[in-house]
Amino acid sequence: MDYTDEVWNALRTLRERSPLVHNITNYVAMDVSANALLAVGAAPAMVHALEEVEDFVAISHALVVNIGTLSPEWVEAMRRAADRAVALGKPWVLDPVGAGATRYRTQTARELAARRPTVIRGNASEILALAGGVEGTRGVDSAHGSDDAVAAARALAGRLGCVVAVTGAVDYVTDGARTLSVENGHVMMTRVTALGCSATALVGAFLAAHDDPVFAAAAALAVIGVAGEIAARDSEGPGTFRQRLLDALYAMDHAALAVVRIAEH
Amino acid sequence: MDYTDEVWNALRTLRERSPLVHNITNYVAMDVSANALLAVGAAPAMVHALEEVEDFVAISHALVVNIGTLSPEWVEAMRRAADRAVALGKPWVLDPVGAGATRYRTQTARELAARRPTVIRGNASEILALAGGVEGTRGVDSAHGSDDAVAAARALAGRLGCVVAVTGAVDYVTDGARTLSVENGHVMMTRVTALGCSATALVGAFLAAHDDPVFAAAAALAVIGVAGEIAARDSEGPGTFRQRLLDALYAMDHAALAVVRIAEH
Amino acid sequence: MDYTDEVWNALRTLRERSPLVHNITNYVAMDVSANALLAVGAAPAMVHALEEVEDFVAISHALVVNIGTLSPEWVEAMRRAADRAVALGKPWVLDPVGAGATRYRTQTARELAARRPTVIRGNASEILALAGGVEGTRGVDSAHGSDDAVAAARALAGRLGCVVAVTGAVDYVTDGARTLSVENGHVMMTRVTALGCSATALVGAFLAAHDDPVFAAAAALAVIGVAGEIAARDSEGPGTFRQRLLDALYAMDHAALAVVRIAEH
Repeated sequence: MDYTDEVWNALRTLRERSPLVHNITNYVAMDVSANALLAVGAAPAMVHALEEVEDFVAISHALVVNIGTLSPEWVEAMRRAADRAVALGKPWVLDPVGAGATRYRTQTARELAARRPTVIRGNASEILALAGGVEGTRGVDSAHGSDDAVAAARALAGRLGCVVAVTGAVDYVTDGARTLSVENGHVMMTRVTALGCSATALVGAFLAAHDDPVFAAAAALAVIGVAGEIAARDSEGPGTFRQRLLDALYAMDHAALAVVRIAEH
Repeated sequence: MDYTDEVWNALRTLRERSPLVHNITNYVAMDVSANALLAVGAAPAMVHALEEVEDFVAISHALVVNIGTLSPEWVEAMRRAADRAVALGKPWVLDPVGAGATRYRTQTARELAARRPTVIRGNASEILALAGGVEGTRGVDSAHGSDDAVAAARALAGRLGCVVAVTGAVDYVTDGARTLSVENGHVMMTRVTALGCSATALVGAFLAAHDDPVFAAAAALAVIGVAGEIAARDSEGPGTFRQRLLDALYAMDHAALAVVRIAEH
Repeated sequence: MDYTDEVWNALRTLRERSPLVHNITNYVAMDVSANALLAVGAAPAMVHALEEVEDFVAISHALVVNIGTLSPEWVEAMRRAADRAVALGKPWVLDPVGAGATRYRTQTARELAARRPTVIRGNASEILALAGGVEGTRGVDSAHGSDDAVAAARALAGRLGCVVAVTGAVDYVTDGARTLSVENGHVMMTRVTALGCSATALVGAFLAAHDDPVFAAAAALAVIGVAGEIAARDSEGPGTFRQRLLDALYAMDHAALAVVRIAEH
């Protein structure tokens, strides 16, 4: 099946709605995530104070929680924001950055994962750590391929009642029953910081534009993957690549999406 | 009247003085604001610890306070820094990011606005929220055009005894009596995060180079607007646009400023 | 003596090992430092919570501590991380950003410098402030040339038993006995924020690839300097320059390193 039209329709809806995406994310990812959201057509906001985080969820269309540079006060803000999103029926996405690297990080990721996220997006090591299988992640790097984590992702999705997206050379998105694979992207994306975090942010934006969270997540990963493929064509390195990826997100049209490779797995 | 020469003179003075601009700004804006200040010829510093924030005001030429990612401890640093700037007769600028979006944000913006800033720079929704008129801002987006806010800006400036700059497709800068409009800029500037914050930072730098805060703010907005116009000429999207805007700020000369459109309003 | 081969060998080793570099750095520097580390071939992580900072040192190959946007809780994390690095025999680098600008900053820098860093990297004003000579730094700017600080750097290195790198138009790296000079780089590097911080981050990566800390630091400074020279060739300003510097770090090869200018001083 060719998903090009459905991805394009989701992207058009996203641009029409220009969803306000509330991010509680790490310091490294803030700039590029905000720019990726703006480029794709969403409206980003970064808000973390306990004094306002629940109020801000109430005016947002989706919440993105990323534990990259976590600390106890920020984690408390993440908890409150997640609980408010669930209470209000708004989609929220968890990026368990570095789960498995330290006990604190793994425990925090698991605790947040239990708060009914709509989607969890991580690399194989992070998903395996969340699922309880492994330790020994090297921070944001994945020591495992995404193929290794598909079974764990399915089990985790079934147990938590959410969608799990495990990304890598091939991305897999599953709700425990159905699984989509996404084969877009470029290896240069691993040489720019926080593009995984930006992918998570785009998942948040697409959740505000499409009712099926499995497809919304796959569409987001396909769109940023295609942007990466376009950017790699004439980039000399990761510096110019990052800027061209943002350009490509902005210019993304139906024709460019012809290379979308989403499949039932 | 043609303001090109006066803007150019202000920019030359700025470059000669290379003012140290002390920023207490949000996490998203830090990188691009610092780079915009460096590109235009100023020297940026980001300093927020309560233990040193007043000492740092004392060695700086201007202070920029931006509440984008506020939290109570940072707000306390903003208060102390602002009060010290006033006590020392140094210019300071307030960017009330997202005023109107949450009660905490609106209250904080109003409290800081009462501490005698030299200039307040915001979009229409933020200025209206500060003025007490409206709620319902969507974070950093403006739900109102700048034209809607000119009367509120004048009233606010008169009440607070400061200059208010309300930015949008057309920017207005007023002290309550006199109003300048600035019609430079490009719509692509709305697709790059924190360029409004960067404009505020440039206002700080220009306040250290020109004695008239109405003109200094207008000149800063004109310079970043012209840089945006130049950058838009051969950019394919917001990624390359951002870098070319910084290039244009760095290369800005008398000839490029011929397109400055400042007018008495 | 021509150091090209030795720098190239260090860079190849770095890329083979892809060391995990743990950064506790300032908010402004996080993005570009992480991207510089990725571009050169290392794996960056930014981790600061007291709950995990020591655990993360244990899985990292080098630690980088940068006080640019310090606050008491972050300083406590820096202390614990540094002490753990020393206990585990892992290299750590200190960047005393703005030492001399405020009493708090100078005291913090001196206190951390006493915790047995492998290398301290600063500009002349910062090194002079650490050494006890001078006050009056303007934030991250140096009011002194690196030549002025060589004697202070040697004395400081001898007293602390570490390597001190003082950077400027010419960089000097010394352990108190031996001194290497590095004459690579480009003046445009001073118009992009946090490239000094990024140089410090690269020193951390090279310490994980070469056993001699004097040479490792000089090699890191030479590599980022050469990347700056390459980037300056066809950049129109600091915006595109920054991206091309990252491209050049990524593409750096033996031939490009022919312009390395390291000398015994």
